[in-house]
Amino acid sequence: MGAIADQTSSSNDTTQPPPPLDSSMEVLPMDVHKVALPPSQTSLQKLKVRFKETFFPDDPFRHFKGRSSATKWLLAVQYIFPILQWAPNYNLSLFKSDVVSGLTIASLAIPQGISYAKLASLPPIIGLYSSFVPPLVYALLGSSRDLAVGPVSIASLIMGSMLRQEVSPTKEPGLFLQLGFIIDFLSKATLIGFMAGAAIIVSLQQLKSLLGITHFTTQMGLVPVLSSIFHKTDEWSWQTILMGVSFLLFLLLTRHVSMRRPKLFWISAGAPLASVILSTLLVFAFKAENHGISVIGKLQGGLNRPSMNMLHFHGTHLALVMKTGLITGIISLTEGIAVGRTFASLKDYQVDGNKEMMAIGFMNIIGSCTSCYVTTGAFSRSAVNNNAGCKTAVSNIVMAVTVMVTLLFLMPLFLYTPNVVLGAIIITAVIGLIDIPAAYHIWKMDKMDFLICICAFMGVIFISVQEGLAIAVGISVFKILMQVTRPKIVILGNIADTDIYRNLHHYKDAKRMPGFLILAVEAPINFANVTYLNERISRYIEDEKMGEKQLDFNYVILDLSAVSAVDTSGISFLMDLKKTLAKRGLELVYVNPVGDVAEKLQRANEIHSFLGVDSLYLTIGEAVLSLSSMMKEQP
Amino acid sequence: MGAIADQTSSSNDTTQPPPPLDSSMEVLPMDVHKVALPPSQTSLQKLKVRFKETFFPDDPFRHFKGRSSATKWLLAVQYIFPILQWAPNYNLSLFKSDVVSGLTIASLAIPQGISYAKLASLPPIIGLYSSFVPPLVYALLGSSRDLAVGPVSIASLIMGSMLRQEVSPTKEPGLFLQLGFIIDFLSKATLIGFMAGAAIIVSLQQLKSLLGITHFTTQMGLVPVLSSIFHKTDEWSWQTILMGVSFLLFLLLTRHVSMRRPKLFWISAGAPLASVILSTLLVFAFKAENHGISVIGKLQGGLNRPSMNMLHFHGTHLALVMKTGLITGIISLTEGIAVGRTFASLKDYQVDGNKEMMAIGFMNIIGSCTSCYVTTGAFSRSAVNNNAGCKTAVSNIVMAVTVMVTLLFLMPLFLYTPNVVLGAIIITAVIGLIDIPAAYHIWKMDKMDFLICICAFMGVIFISVQEGLAIAVGISVFKILMQVTRPKIVILGNIADTDIYRNLHHYKDAKRMPGFLILAVEAPINFANVTYLNERISRYIEDEKMGEKQLDFNYVILDLSAVSAVDTSGISFLMDLKKTLAKRGLELVYVNPVGDVAEKLQRANEIHSFLGVDSLYLTIGEAVLSLSSMMKEQP
Repeated sequence: MGAIADQTSSSNDTTQPPPPLDSSMEVLPMDVHKVALPPSQTSLQKLKVRFKETFFPDDPFRHFKGRSSATKWLLAVQYIFPILQWAPNYNLSLFKSDVVSGLTIASLAIPQGISYAKLASLPPIIGLYSSFVPPLVYALLGSSRDLAVGPVSIASLIMGSMLRQEVSPTKEPGLFLQLGFIIDFLSKATLIGFMAGAAIIVSLQQLKSLLGITHFTTQMGLVPVLSSIFHKTDEWSWQTILMGVSFLLFLLLTRHVSMRRPKLFWISAGAPLASVILSTLLVFAFKAENHGISVIGKLQGGLNRPSMNMLHFHGTHLALVMKTGLITGIISLTEGIAVGRTFASLKDYQVDGNKEMMAIGFMNIIGSCTSCYVTTGAFSRSAVNNNAGCKTAVSNIVMAVTVMVTLLFLMPLFLYTPNVVLGAIIITAVIGLIDIPAAYHIWKMDKMDFLICICAFMGVIFISVQEGLAIAVGISVFKILMQVTRPKIVILGNIADTDIYRNLHHYKDAKRMPGFLILAVEAPINFANVTYLNERISRYIEDEKMGEKQLDFNYVILDLSAVSAVDTSGISFLMDLKKTLAKRGLELVYVNPVGDVAEKLQRANEIHSFLGVDSLYLTIGEAVLSLSSMMKEQP
Repeated sequence: MGAIADQTSSSNDTTQPPPPLDSSMEVLPMDVHKVALPPSQTSLQKLKVRFKETFFPDDPFRHFKGRSSATKWLLAVQYIFPILQWAPNYNLSLFKSDVVSGLTIASLAIPQGISYAKLASLPPIIGLYSSFVPPLVYALLGSSRDLAVGPVSIASLIMGSMLRQEVSPTKEPGLFLQLGFIIDFLSKATLIGFMAGAAIIVSLQQLKSLLGITHFTTQMGLVPVLSSIFHKTDEWSWQTILMGVSFLLFLLLTRHVSMRRPKLFWISAGAPLASVILSTLLVFAFKAENHGISVIGKLQGGLNRPSMNMLHFHGTHLALVMKTGLITGIISLTEGIAVGRTFASLKDYQVDGNKEMMAIGFMNIIGSCTSCYVTTGAFSRSAVNNNAGCKTAVSNIVMAVTVMVTLLFLMPLFLYTPNVVLGAIIITAVIGLIDIPAAYHIWKMDKMDFLICICAFMGVIFISVQEGLAIAVGISVFKILMQVTRPKIVILGNIADTDIYRNLHHYKDAKRMPGFLILAVEAPINFANVTYLNERISRYIEDEKMGEKQLDFNYVILDLSAVSAVDTSGISFLMDLKKTLAKRGLELVYVNPVGDVAEKLQRANEIHSFLGVDSLYLTIGEAVLSLSSMMKEQP
């Protein structure tokens, strides 16, 4: 039966060197199961598996196995261009839905594009360019049916705040790689705190337009912005404030209505465009631009111009541009993929993380060659897209065409559009990022996570957007490292009349086994925690022996079930622990080492021969049974 | 019976909202054990426990519990001054042993002190000062009986290399804190690679003295040193080379003899002092200082002068000094504690990590006020101390007194001591740091660890000492983070005729349970791995259902035994997974959540009611049994 051999041989405890731990040797005095070695693999094979799991966790090429080479080619092309998967089945009824939803998101994308570009300290036209080319690219490459692609507030804010003080706006090259595992380090708590802080910073920035202040601080923090506002009260313009507050209230009202009744989504979807048109007419009618209301002014018509020649990969600002690109890139990827996944799970289809990364990456690389700035899938617009009944990425194409028409023919209309309305549109869009119920939920679930959330929030508000993010990521990583350096060790007890062993402090009905101390380590054992484990286990033994309990035991059973890996230091620890305990007259046995751990114990044993014939068991129950019978035999 | 209730009530699967997971509710159709909640704790209590485990893993005050307040005071004073524990029982026979070992290590400490101070770019006298005050402080505060305290090569090297290029030698304030958990991040593999690299760099530096070169590079890297040596062949002095090689061979020979026969330890212990005396006599006799052999020259006699007024906590170099202090401090603490532990485990007594940290910290704070530089327990001298039969820290006092006598009366004798002999002494001391068998052992055990070891080695040799160290620590931490972001998920199978469930790929005799997919996650579930877990579990399900196996199952059992913690993202993942699988017609049940996880599942269930009556089991066996019977009842 291979690994499980019912050996009843009566070999006694002799002084001969312990035999190695493989299927032919373990001679135990009882009827117990043996610890086997996992199937052997070379280091290269292991490395290959680890690489694959790290970078391609969803194994994108699994459907290719065992197909003919023609099919493989077709699958590969379809893998790169998901449009080829659904385009053959596309029909008029799907197209109708997509036109409606495409026009709806276009009415959002045009005012938001202009607004977000201003947020990123870029000319407004760049926001429109970025709503034209990237959606077309995404329609070819993306795997989400609901994602509405374009500039988003957070990435615009970060880009603006990072580039503002040091350089004139620069287009960044698309710095998108297979960085999936970096994205993983942005936890939910981090994001909620960060988003809320960013929303407040963005809203405060809009007070410039909303109050009509002309000399505004270039800084982004809460303190300098508020001080700038209250030191410039003489610049406040009542006409601007009146118009701003009116439109803000109108937009917030429409948002509220649509949130209450999802069927009325078109109210909030249409409101920004309606506001832009209405306010432009008002300014035009009352010549309000002469009464202190600042307007966008002349925007040059025409489509995106190529900007390949404007990409500089050298020069003094390269480091800053790289950093900005990396951070906005990671944020955009995270947001785009998360938004795509959210709507995919609503409609119950799969979004492929690698494909999305490629799609968002390529659309930004092509975007950076055609006068666009960073784009991704926006949550608010995707929600509208989804509510408007989009069926495929064709809605993005419809939106892009609408933006194209605007760029070609409708640019003169923005001449009288007041900036204050753009500010109101941005505030309405970002206010939804402040998710108080989610923060409360985190508070209920995990105080430590809540602290991380608050740190991210405070960092963004009081220090800066990117440092707030860095602080939050730092704390998150630190929390993980703490879990690794201070793993849990628990004492197990037996639940009466069963073979079940559980934490004594958790299960009040678990009872200590007299004569044994049963410990379970609940983490990989490595250099970062061996010192701690050593001290903690010594303390447990001392507590049990000397403390109030005055328990007597000769065996320490170490349950390794939850030890998913050991490194060199970990193996040394396991060896040394056995020797140290032996000096104190205690025998240590190991229970259920998993694949990797069993393998390394075996290799260490080949060199150091520290495992006795009865040092390894498959379950705690069998260890207790076997050792108890030996105790009786040898009083 | 509290948590374990044998409930045989026949409640069926109704549509009412699922009751909460506490001891009064779980209504299961079978005779199974229940998942209980751990004893409730407030967040503050949890934080307190976590803080204690992080900073005081060995619980230094556990002996204080339940004692009278007078005893507590005595214990506290004894805790701070371990000398009070053993001094009352000190006797003449112990003192005899300590005098012998103290004189032996003094004969090593004097030449090494002078040599290491030169290595740290400090005046040689500082090395002797540092062998006088710190050992006295350590004798009062330290808990190791074998540690021989004084300057050590590695810390001297780092200090020299960090301070050399930017500032004149500066005394650093003792930057020692309760930094135990940072120390944990120096893995064995890192240290072996780093030490070997440092030994080579140190040895190369000595070529300056050994070849008699006067114009030597100030850089430390392999390349600049070698190029400096071969560009200055005209400065080579044959008299110096002859003397250097002779004494180097003599010292290496004595080292070899003592290593072969540990009883002859005094040969290698006495050799450095003998070399110094012999070479000084030779120089004096042949007036060799006029023939190209450089000598130490005049050293001012007298004891340490106070240097409090020389400690500057401001100024331009503060940042560098802080950094140097922090790095040398961490290295010294690591080395001192590791050496103390090594010899303690040889003689089977306990060394208290916190006490050692305090002792090494205080002796450096007091040292920095008395013209000393960084000191710790040196491995080579402690080994000699141990071999020479030391019994208590009194051997350090004897050594300090010997150094004091030297400082007061013997300084003029060093006038003719040639630098070349000091170089030979350093090379002999550091050559033992190159531990090839240990590196080979790492290669055998873990290829990834070996890579870390090589990176540290290469980094030290080709870049710089501190950057090599930083690279190695970075890789070690990255490796831990990778384990967290890509945890193992394994499929479990049943071992025939038992209740044991083990990894199918590890135990060939484990068999799939028809109708079930049993998965075990082997890591804490948190924000860093939920995306991966989601994709990996989807892939497992798809592989099993659609792949070659075409297995049919209705239940997915998720074994949480090895999930030691979850955060907010983790809980959301567990909830969402249940919902997603339900949409695919699969039912997810959780098995054996540990304390913290059970508590959070319960809290999440209070808000979201996602757990059904049969969603939680204590063991996989019970889950399989109970669900199987339900399958039969409801075909």
